Amino acid sequence: MTQDPLVIFTPSGKRGRFPAGTPVLTAARQLGVDLDSVCGGRGICSKCQITPSYGDFSKHGVHVAEDALSEWNKVEQRYQDKRGLKPGRRLGCQATIQRDVVIDVPPESQVHRQVVRKAASARVIEMDPATRLYYIEVDEPDMHEPTGDLERIARALKAQWDIPEISTDFSTLGKLQPILRKGDWKITVALHKADNSAPKLIAAWPGLHEGGIYGLAIDLGSTTVAAHLTNLDTGEVIASSGIMNPQIRFGEDLMSRVSYSMMNPGGDKEMTRAVREAIDALALDIAKEAGIEPALILETVFVCNPVMHHLLLGIDPVELGQAPFALATSDSMTLTATELGLTAIPGAAQIYVLPCIAGHVGADAAAVALSEEPGKSDDLALIIDVGTNAEILLGDKSGVLACSSPTGPAFEGAQISSGQRAAPGAIEAIRIDPETKEPRFRVIGCDLWSNEDGFAKATAQTGITGICGSGIIEAVAEMRMAGLVDPSGLIGSAQATGTARSIPEGRTHSYVIHDATAEGGPLITVTQGDIRAIQLAKSALYAGARLLMDQREVDQVDRVVLAGAFGAHISPLHAMVLGMIPDVPLDKVTSAGNAAGTGARIALCNVAARREIERVVRQITKVETAIEPKFQEHFVNANAIPHATDPFPILNAQVTLPNVSFNTGGGDEGGRRRRRRG
Amino acid sequence: MTQDPLVIFTPSGKRGRFPAGTPVLTAARQLGVDLDSVCGGRGICSKCQITPSYGDFSKHGVHVAEDALSEWNKVEQRYQDKRGLKPGRRLGCQATIQRDVVIDVPPESQVHRQVVRKAASARVIEMDPATRLYYIEVDEPDMHEPTGDLERIARALKAQWDIPEISTDFSTLGKLQPILRKGDWKITVALHKADNSAPKLIAAWPGLHEGGIYGLAIDLGSTTVAAHLTNLDTGEVIASSGIMNPQIRFGEDLMSRVSYSMMNPGGDKEMTRAVREAIDALALDIAKEAGIEPALILETVFVCNPVMHHLLLGIDPVELGQAPFALATSDSMTLTATELGLTAIPGAAQIYVLPCIAGHVGADAAAVALSEEPGKSDDLALIIDVGTNAEILLGDKSGVLACSSPTGPAFEGAQISSGQRAAPGAIEAIRIDPETKEPRFRVIGCDLWSNEDGFAKATAQTGITGICGSGIIEAVAEMRMAGLVDPSGLIGSAQATGTARSIPEGRTHSYVIHDATAEGGPLITVTQGDIRAIQLAKSALYAGARLLMDQREVDQVDRVVLAGAFGAHISPLHAMVLGMIPDVPLDKVTSAGNAAGTGARIALCNVAARREIERVVRQITKVETAIEPKFQEHFVNANAIPHATDPFPILNAQVTLPNVSFNTGGGDEGGRRRRRRG
Repeated sequence: MTQDPLVIFTPSGKRGRFPAGTPVLTAARQLGVDLDSVCGGRGICSKCQITPSYGDFSKHGVHVAEDALSEWNKVEQRYQDKRGLKPGRRLGCQATIQRDVVIDVPPESQVHRQVVRKAASARVIEMDPATRLYYIEVDEPDMHEPTGDLERIARALKAQWDIPEISTDFSTLGKLQPILRKGDWKITVALHKADNSAPKLIAAWPGLHEGGIYGLAIDLGSTTVAAHLTNLDTGEVIASSGIMNPQIRFGEDLMSRVSYSMMNPGGDKEMTRAVREAIDALALDIAKEAGIEPALILETVFVCNPVMHHLLLGIDPVELGQAPFALATSDSMTLTATELGLTAIPGAAQIYVLPCIAGHVGADAAAVALSEEPGKSDDLALIIDVGTNAEILLGDKSGVLACSSPTGPAFEGAQISSGQRAAPGAIEAIRIDPETKEPRFRVIGCDLWSNEDGFAKATAQTGITGICGSGIIEAVAEMRMAGLVDPSGLIGSAQATGTARSIPEGRTHSYVIHDATAEGGPLITVTQGDIRAIQLAKSALYAGARLLMDQREVDQVDRVVLAGAFGAHISPLHAMVLGMIPDVPLDKVTSAGNAAGTGARIALCNVAARREIERVVRQITKVETAIEPKFQEHFVNANAIPHATDPFPILNAQVTLPNVSFNTGGGDEGGRRRRRRG
Repeated sequence: MTQDPLVIFTPSGKRGRFPAGTPVLTAARQLGVDLDSVCGGRGICSKCQITPSYGDFSKHGVHVAEDALSEWNKVEQRYQDKRGLKPGRRLGCQATIQRDVVIDVPPESQVHRQVVRKAASARVIEMDPATRLYYIEVDEPDMHEPTGDLERIARALKAQWDIPEISTDFSTLGKLQPILRKGDWKITVALHKADNSAPKLIAAWPGLHEGGIYGLAIDLGSTTVAAHLTNLDTGEVIASSGIMNPQIRFGEDLMSRVSYSMMNPGGDKEMTRAVREAIDALALDIAKEAGIEPALILETVFVCNPVMHHLLLGIDPVELGQAPFALATSDSMTLTATELGLTAIPGAAQIYVLPCIAGHVGADAAAVALSEEPGKSDDLALIIDVGTNAEILLGDKSGVLACSSPTGPAFEGAQISSGQRAAPGAIEAIRIDPETKEPRFRVIGCDLWSNEDGFAKATAQTGITGICGSGIIEAVAEMRMAGLVDPSGLIGSAQATGTARSIPEGRTHSYVIHDATAEGGPLITVTQGDIRAIQLAKSALYAGARLLMDQREVDQVDRVVLAGAFGAHISPLHAMVLGMIPDVPLDKVTSAGNAAGTGARIALCNVAARREIERVVRQITKVETAIEPKFQEHFVNANAIPHATDPFPILNAQVTLPNVSFNTGGGDEGGRRRRRRG
């Protein structure tokens, strides 16, 4: 008796015997091999491409003959003529098994294909999006058996895809009849399934839809709204874009927006309208940039701080402005674009908002936790998402703590005399010679240092306009290391510091970084007030971290992760000189880039990750800085800048400073515009 | 050893022993006795009122002593002082069991209380609404244990009401925080639960909400939109109101509206907007009439024909205008007021639209099936919902058939020379003396016949303006019985009929019912054209009924039910004389009043009834009149008016004609305005 042919799939190693004539796709499904298909085996979607391997496979004990699969058929030829297949590829739904065979499923044919993130901490995102496409052939209506078109679509999904039940987004229902007829009863539907309820039909196209479907991962910051447009099939980011949050006109920081809402009846509604309009504009902009129809954007994931969270959802944030800082809801939210009042994308588009951790620790911190996974860390990690508020996570496998710390906007260049936001012309890096006390610097938009040839020419267009957040941190740290500033933060006079760059200003002194007044340009200095502002901000940040360390009963951490697009631009050395972060070996300070944005992307691409972060968030221990007396104590103690006496051991470590050039400004995802998070 | 006291509840008969000191409400819950409570036993909602019975209950073998329950307590006294309790009543949550006791649960304290319908076929509606109120006391926010207000509401519902999980309507979420604080963390929430998914929080009030919650049962006809405003707790209809369907300006009948949509791009959207605006206006109107806030209307149930169904839902009805008459969806729909674009009621208000049976047999027919339950009938019932289209159901326990028949608007007074809609001044009943051929009639707004004293004075204000649908049916039947019209429908000349009321008109004759031309009033006649229009309409109706009887292979039915508000005004005698309906004994013809509206009310008050009708609709055999050759044949054969030769045996039966006075015009629910369905 002859045995049925043996089929071995790689890379999974799954194997089984099937009667000769069984299509490869059928065998793959029965074995649970991860082989994609949208058209359900009709030879039109080409998602099920496989590569048969021929020859001897001694480790499997198999010899694969040239005729192990059926011959190239008409359907494959038609596809080859029309689109072309890579050499050696076959369509898994057409090729049938004839003899023992080893079949490789290439990465792009896997349903749960993995997307490699570009970040240093390169983990992969496994594609498991909530929304998938299904091609079906629907029965025509029959007067003798009257059923609705929708009910026949449901019947086809059951028969052809084994989906027992669906629900339908109401705004999609009215569009189905013409689509069915245009496609001659062949139709591709997008089903969204994010939980245990029945999949929801949220979009449809006549025939086989080959235009892809997309999702937006949006990091909604106080200052900037940044979006990554992601292909929901491949996980590829096809465009990134950011715009200013128009709520800035109601208040620069979060608390001033909460105040605006308190003082102006209906003020929260104004701010909600403004941010939703901005999101609509951003969606149109990014779709245009990517050359896709906004109608193909079927999902959007939001991460944001609690105030932005409430204002996005149309909830008055007033309770977040006063103790006990009660969130209206802390759980994740799933809703539709219609419910959120968005009009640029389909009304049926599904919105997922990550859960908040506490009244001051938002969905953005949850996204950082999803991206950086402190709860899976073997060593104790301190993760700081630096912005107007810093979100701080401390933890390892044994548990995670979280708090937020009111650093204020100084780290973003606000409240700094020559401060400005990170934009071309802003000083972003500074070095001060400890001997001569002379500075050299770099500005955004130019890779040269100011003492290098061609700098003047290269910066002629942008000018040198001010200092951004990373620049001011470096400036203060360098001033301390050069002995221009004492441990208490006081700038010495020209006599004390031995440099003419120390100039009197009021009752104190300033340090001149760049003087273009002769040409009618700006005088860029670091004033005593600037130092104080940075001291306050860094003390708050440090105090928050210390508070978590107290709770955890540790005096040091194993590693520090600086997150946030801004975090990506902070020099770890200078941060540590300044005392922003607890001391750790310099090579234990890493940048996670825009970890919140990455968390949003993970939640967009992988529905299980949503359940994961919802679970994790519930387990995080929340620490409220506003009511911890120890916070105040740490804050005061952290005011000094102690490091100057011996910075050299650190300097001698010869670490490479983070790349702060303009082009990588968007964080780890290659964002096309420089942006900052609030 | 002393046994615990025995508690016997009436009328349920449920009994059990409980330790002395157990509150009556607790005992009732443990025994599964149907005793209501909104406040969860806190002595503030008064829903759990009970009446202890004292003395000997020999059949139970119990003697109830005066001290069987605990003494009247402060909470009861406070309630008594504030609101008053009926004599003998106690609060079930306050009175505790001390000795053996018999406790009566009065109907108004039962959760599933029954509402007696006023209709002749008086069945009861068991109250089991989808939306119920729950009073809870919510934990205040705690900075050390940060959770959202919503999550603490969910926790309270779980702890205090054993509701394991809720979802929340998005538009309600933003309202919860101020409500919680206004009620000092005591809150009443409305939860909607219509299926297996988690109950949905759709409204909330500070403290104990005592203003009730309401639902609208809306019968959306081609011509009229009628609504019953119903208390969702008691089932009581507190107001009924109707308005004209503003879509009439796009076409009188359904097919002309479908044509309008075909010929005018965006025409369907115009009609959708018009009808939704009308529903908003109606909701405001009826709430005002009842003196309630529209914000308390939390549910709305719609019944309507397929074209109105699609236009309400914003679906282009174009497919319903051509074979194969494919519905976009035939299943029931549950959605929100926001999704439906309604603004007069809360956005979170839940909308339920009954399922359609087929492309020509709508949710209105489903509602009639729900109200009249042909599938539970022992005898074979023919149910006709008379309107511009007649929906016809035929069935008994062994099965139900359905079709719709295009009767046209003649039965509603349209296309009739002196026709008008049912309004004061319209002739609604006519008798013609077979000897003298003289008519007498009654008009809407006056109970007197035209030959009675005082008629002229009583009708002076309204005048006598025309003939409405029921009037023209009686006129034609009476003319046939009086020998003025022959079996083919031809009106005889004065010579042939022996009355001067037969007057020449064109090439045929008319019969004069009322001549006020001398006073400058109208000449009201029945023309040959009128007879032909009625013959067409009644033939269509009869042919539809016959078609179903053919399918069922029967020559007669056991009983006929005339539904529709218009059906309530048709005289069964005259309908049978005319050949509108198959012959049955006259006492087997009943009026179901506005059965579609009643079906809507049942679905509004009882969530299980929704599942019931969804199940029933799937089992109904649909018959499409448009494609059945036999329909045409029956139609032609039904054209004659055969009954005149021997009407007297029927007349001698001395049946009481249906009450057609103005005040009961709205059907079985005591509707306050006369209305007609299209």
